[in-house]
Amino acid sequence: MSRYCFRLRVDPTRIPEYRRRHAAVWPDMLRALRDAGWRDYWLFLDEDGLVIGVFESERSFGEAEEAMARTEANRAWQDFMAPLFQGAGPDDGLRVLEPVFHLETQLAALGET
Amino acid sequence: MSRYCFRLRVDPTRIPEYRRRHAAVWPDMLRALRDAGWRDYWLFLDEDGLVIGVFESERSFGEAEEAMARTEANRAWQDFMAPLFQGAGPDDGLRVLEPVFHLETQLAALGET
Repeated sequence: MSRYCFRLRVDPTRIPEYRRRHAAVWPDMLRALRDAGWRDYWLFLDEDGLVIGVFESERSFGEAEEAMARTEANRAWQDFMAPLFQGAGPDDGLRVLEPVFHLETQLAALGET
Repeated sequence: MSRYCFRLRVDPTRIPEYRRRHAAVWPDMLRALRDAGWRDYWLFLDEDGLVIGVFESERSFGEAEEAMARTEANRAWQDFMAPLFQGAGPDDGLRVLEPVFHLETQLAALGET
């Protein structure tokens, strides 16, 4: 299992709507994420519009993303969400961050838990 | 158990050094994090210097941070790391992000797993 982190930027003026929509994501979208192997998936938001997603998967990031991209639920959800991203500016598409530290992995390397 | 997410910004010119230091964090710092109740603690990095931390704790964010702030290992580590943050610019101190979505919580609300 690997943990992934990505960033997006939502139009800061649409943050209340972004928050409202994510408080009750469509059941079909939840099931599509689960069935595509996304686990412990969180979204976090800052007031400048920075959105951080973190999740675990047995798959590579690209495979996990592709498994979602193939679903009808995801296509509909992305269409529904697109207006909230339009004012975010250029170069604010999805970017994957590099893992640089994991506490338990380094403790294990010391022979500790 | 709650999951928390925070952001920092490292001087982009010091990213290789930031990565190198985090590949082998001091054992005393690892133990201090563990003993302060930080769990599944990850750091992720983007090439513009954005650093994202995510961890779980039984404590509030403020209590988890305060438990670390009291340790000698953390004081020494923060002194060691400070030069890597000096070129990051103003308003780039630690900021906590707001959780807006968790997949398993919403699946559970549907009576599903």
